[in-house]
Amino acid sequence: MTIKKLIVENQLRVEGVLDTLLTQPMITDQTLLAASRYSLLNGGKRMRPCMVYVTGEIFGANPDDLDLVAAAIECIHSYSLVHDDLPAMDDDDLRRGMPTCHIAYDEATAILAGDALQTFAFEILSSSKFKTINAQQQVALIANLASASGLRGMCGGQALDIAATNCAINLTQLEQIHQLKTGALLTSAILMGAICAPKTTPEILQNLKIFGENIGLAFQVQDDILDIEGDTAVLGKPQGSDLQANKSTYPSLLGLEQAKLKSQQLYENALNALAQIPADTTQLAQLAAYIVSRDH
Amino acid sequence: MTIKKLIVENQLRVEGVLDTLLTQPMITDQTLLAASRYSLLNGGKRMRPCMVYVTGEIFGANPDDLDLVAAAIECIHSYSLVHDDLPAMDDDDLRRGMPTCHIAYDEATAILAGDALQTFAFEILSSSKFKTINAQQQVALIANLASASGLRGMCGGQALDIAATNCAINLTQLEQIHQLKTGALLTSAILMGAICAPKTTPEILQNLKIFGENIGLAFQVQDDILDIEGDTAVLGKPQGSDLQANKSTYPSLLGLEQAKLKSQQLYENALNALAQIPADTTQLAQLAAYIVSRDH
Repeated sequence: MTIKKLIVENQLRVEGVLDTLLTQPMITDQTLLAASRYSLLNGGKRMRPCMVYVTGEIFGANPDDLDLVAAAIECIHSYSLVHDDLPAMDDDDLRRGMPTCHIAYDEATAILAGDALQTFAFEILSSSKFKTINAQQQVALIANLASASGLRGMCGGQALDIAATNCAINLTQLEQIHQLKTGALLTSAILMGAICAPKTTPEILQNLKIFGENIGLAFQVQDDILDIEGDTAVLGKPQGSDLQANKSTYPSLLGLEQAKLKSQQLYENALNALAQIPADTTQLAQLAAYIVSRDH
Repeated sequence: MTIKKLIVENQLRVEGVLDTLLTQPMITDQTLLAASRYSLLNGGKRMRPCMVYVTGEIFGANPDDLDLVAAAIECIHSYSLVHDDLPAMDDDDLRRGMPTCHIAYDEATAILAGDALQTFAFEILSSSKFKTINAQQQVALIANLASASGLRGMCGGQALDIAATNCAINLTQLEQIHQLKTGALLTSAILMGAICAPKTTPEILQNLKIFGENIGLAFQVQDDILDIEGDTAVLGKPQGSDLQANKSTYPSLLGLEQAKLKSQQLYENALNALAQIPADTTQLAQLAAYIVSRDH
């Protein structure tokens, strides 16, 4: 199977799971439920769920358990997009060519939908739906996701990113922002897939972490490159929007060619970490290659 | 010890815990950390932590474990206040006589601080700091808190509350709103305290749930009564603000006298549930009495 086909297959798979989890009859405000579903089921790339599936399957995790973990991490990613798009944050009206949540609904609903999606991630991970993993593994999943998405992870990175707008920052600062803002959650996807498996060693987890950190940063460098070279129609957002927002990017700090070299270096670091793992990690390598060569 | 003294003692206790948990050196945006601390350490009543402590101690839970649970639920309560105060929500400039988070900082920081405080609650509950409880109990705590604060709990209730503004709603609808918006989290505080204990029976948990639901609703009825009868200086928010916001309240639907009777009825239901529990629940009864007679 080609990697693009695998990605699409995993996309459809997690969308099916999310659709089911968030349609169970529930007493709640129906507009809030609709806004949460709208934001969650809007056809994202689902890279994080894909990482969960691919990593988990390499180490023999139960597929149904991976479904829950994939759904949970996508809820976190989705909530962060809803809040990032708000007028007080990036003030974006479009996401993947569709009105953002606060445009389709209203700001209050978008704030609450983001809040509820975050909570839902932890509701899924603490549920009794898991087939094979034990309570220790559940706690480890929750600890991993919470740490990756909170003050020391995604939220902290987002705040650093906002603080850096209109500021001159150096490469180290830019890397820290992206390590927290994007890298932490992508790494968490990979580690959570492995945590679901019956057994992995600390060495494997450590190498997966290095793989995740490098590929997470490569993902962001590629995003920055696409902001310059990409096609607005393919991207689903205006090309050049980072430059317009006066944000430091890898190309703005390094130049476009050096940014491409950086992406290549991160890719090679990621492959080196994979090479230390005594398992068939072909599909993770293919995902890494896809990330540094994707056009949207 | 009088109940007021007990409340103050527990207030100081959880504030010490929160202060410690949120000062551990961490790589994050320092403004975000400061805004999170500002919102969390602003001298709230800490009723939910108090419920955790009192219930947990009745059933012999470890005090250090209760500290973590008390801190986690206060993080959830605190995040909900930060987001509720936002311009797109209640648009409040003052909370307990101090500028709200988005006034003291800015809107983007307040959104992120709320997000980070929510995540922090789950980080605390999934941490390895617990002394005596096992992983099953940790998962049960997380499941309980997530369910009480998400779509089927606090968030859902907040959305229903917004939808009901400027609308004629009936008593059943008002009760559903408050059961979700306030009752669910107060009940969760009581149940989480009990979950930390070495053993409780399903019957005890069921009676604690009934106690929590009744006292949670009584808390809200009393809030509504104070909005009419209370003193702005004592309340820390303008008296009459519910009426001004054109929100349905117990007094507006039932009249002031009937609302007081309702509060008394809920208090009696709560005491009846306590009477079924084979343990010394005096302090929970005192807390219930305090809730229906408090003046702020």
